[in-house]
Formats: sequence, structure tokens, C-alpha cells
Amino acid sequence: MIDAPSDGETRIVSHYPPTILELIHRIGKLPGIGEKTAERLTLHIIGASRAEVEQLAQALIAVKEKTRTCRQCFGLSDEPLCSICADPARDNGQICVVEQATDMVAIEKSGAFRGRYHILQGALAPMDGVGPENLRIAELRRRVDSGGIQEVILATSPTVAGDATAAYLARFLAGPSLKISRIACGVPMGGDLKFIDQATLKRALDGRHGI
Amino acid sequence: MIDAPSDGETRIVSHYPPTILELIHRIGKLPGIGEKTAERLTLHIIGASRAEVEQLAQALIAVKEKTRTCRQCFGLSDEPLCSICADPARDNGQICVVEQATDMVAIEKSGAFRGRYHILQGALAPMDGVGPENLRIAELRRRVDSGGIQEVILATSPTVAGDATAAYLARFLAGPSLKISRIACGVPMGGDLKFIDQATLKRALDGRHGI
Repeated sequence: MIDAPSDGETRIVSHYPPTILELIHRIGKLPGIGEKTAERLTLHIIGASRAEVEQLAQALIAVKEKTRTCRQCFGLSDEPLCSICADPARDNGQICVVEQATDMVAIEKSGAFRGRYHILQGALAPMDGVGPENLRIAELRRRVDSGGIQEVILATSPTVAGDATAAYLARFLAGPSLKISRIACGVPMGGDLKFIDQATLKRALDGRHGI
Repeated sequence: MIDAPSDGETRIVSHYPPTILELIHRIGKLPGIGEKTAERLTLHIIGASRAEVEQLAQALIAVKEKTRTCRQCFGLSDEPLCSICADPARDNGQICVVEQATDMVAIEKSGAFRGRYHILQGALAPMDGVGPENLRIAELRRRVDSGGIQEVILATSPTVAGDATAAYLARFLAGPSLKISRIACGVPMGGDLKFIDQATLKRALDGRHGI
């Protein structure tokens, strides 16, 4: 029995069989995917080869089953040690500290860094109950204490929480032979000064350097 | 071993473990989903609950396993007979002929039709080798011949192929007691005349009716 359409959503989706509705519903739950896109993707799936759909379903399950955090840097990995930590060609003297594994990927894409990483898995947020003990700070301290590290680059986000985390780490890790640096904050490349927010402009001016 | 980035694509994706890359690759193959969106969705999947991901994977497989064409109208269904063909409340005297199951869904959403459907599964395209025998035209003929049908509404697309298919069907199905009609083609609701293409305007003028 088809019920009379009661609202907009019911009208849109009630003309498909239940299995198709279920897939539209599941795909529509993904972030940034609206109902129209979910419907379009579902119709593509119906027309796609069975092998293709099975590979997609298996890839979904495999990611949940195999993805873990690297035991050294706490980045995403499907081995106990991630490919960067396991790479003998990278510089052991520098550790770049980031909040999330995705930040590490962004820096890797830039190609500007050839050292090691440490993923904090968040930033300090006392109001939300996130203290130093909730981040991978003790593990970072152990890596620094184990020797061989010349520089720790604090690449947490230039937000209140990221800045506070960087300030905390600078104090916590401070040692006689360790250089601690913070990534520069300023006007982005190609940015039009008249559209840059005031806080960024202030940082760019404060961080000016001689040429 | 991480190879040196050779091109843009390699740079973007080579910083994830293989299982994650595989999922980004699989999601990126879906229509309208670019690499950035595939990456974003994959990171969402990694953070999602295992149950949620399994339900999505199962919904994908279920759609491929259970979706079939209705034995009467050839629309999408997960039963031998689709919900519209099985609905005793619908008008048996009218058959609306469309090219694809998605066209049927669009008409159902409009709520303007309470009869039955027939999905041709395409339109005539002699240049591409699609003749009447490749469409569900014989099956439509059988439904009309079985009696009880007062009107066949030809709702193929207003394209060259759709118009040709409608013209063919009008001749092929013609009978003394059967009304055959074609959906109106003209200016869409809310359309601004100065932005409407000339072919549509010509159709709108040709199809004018007294008020």
C-alpha cells in the first residue's frame, strides 16, 4: 500500500521500492550529500556492474576493518607503523606536530617537509574537557626524550585552541638543545588583501620580516 | 616506499595507506563525485561507526541483488510486480508510456497521474542500432491488446529520439477505440520567456490553445 504523501520528503522518495529507498537514505546520510545526489548515485549503482558495486562495498568494510593509528605518530595507517614512520629516507631530526591526520596529509601534499610527524588527535579545549592527558602529548614527550630530535615544529591550526595547544607544548617540551618553532601565520598566497580578515592581517604584520 | 610525486594526482593521494586510497578511488568513480569529495567522504567513513558503514555496504549489495524490473511495466521493483502495478486503487484504463524508470518517478512526484505505467527502457535510435525490437514495445502492444485500456499517454522525452518513438508508437498502437495522446511541450512553469530556447518557444506557440 502506498500512503498518501504527507509531506515533501515522503512525496520525493515514496515511489521507489524499499531496497532502493534504503540505499538513497543511507547515501543521503553522508555529509554534503543531499537527497537529490543520493537519488542520482543510487540510480547509478542500480545501473553499475555487480563487480563494481561489490568492490565499493568491500572497500567500505575494509577501511573500517584495517584502518588503525600508527603506533609511533598516531596518524592513519593500515600497518602497525605508517609508511612515513617506516620510511628510512625521512629526516629523524624534525617532528612536525599536527592536530589531525588530515593536517598531516595536507602538509605532505605541499611537499615542503621531509621529517617525521606526530598527530595529537585534537587540540586543547578545557571548556569541552579536553586536557593534555586526552591528547597524544605524553607520547610526543617520550619521542622527544628518546633523543635525536633537533626541532619540533608546532603546526597546530591558527585557532584559539590550536594556538593554546602550541603555547602549552612550547613550554612543556622546552629543553636546552631543542629548537621549538611555530608555522607562520599570515596572508595566504594569492590572497587579496582587501578580502583578508583583520585577525590574519594583524598576524601578518606582527610576523613581518626584513627582505 | 613512497615514490617521488610524478604528477598532480599522485601527489594528492599518495599520503594515505592503501585501503584508504582504494576507498577514495572507488568513491571517486561515482558520477559527479570528484577526488576532493571522495577524500572527504572517505575520512567521514573512517570516523563513522562500524554499524553505519556496514549498513551502507549492505544497502549497496542489496540494491544489486534485489532490484529487478517489474514483469508488467518494466519499472524498477524488488518484487515480481512493482507497487504501482500491484496497487488496486490505480486506474487501469490509462497507460503512461515513458522511456526510463526515472521518468516514471518524476511523473509520480508530480502527483498528476493515477493510472498505470509502461517503461520502454529507451527510445528509438536507428543510428545506434536501437529499433522497436530492442524496446518493450511488443509488451506494450500485448497490454493494449488485452483490453480495458482507454488511453495511452506518450510521455517520452521531447527530444528527436523521444518524438520519433512517440510518433512510431502512435502509428503502431492506433486502433478504433483507443485514444493516444502526447504530453504537452512548451514553456516550463516559472520560465522567463527571454531565456527559453527557440525550439521550445516554437512548440509552445504551435501548441497554443483557446482560453
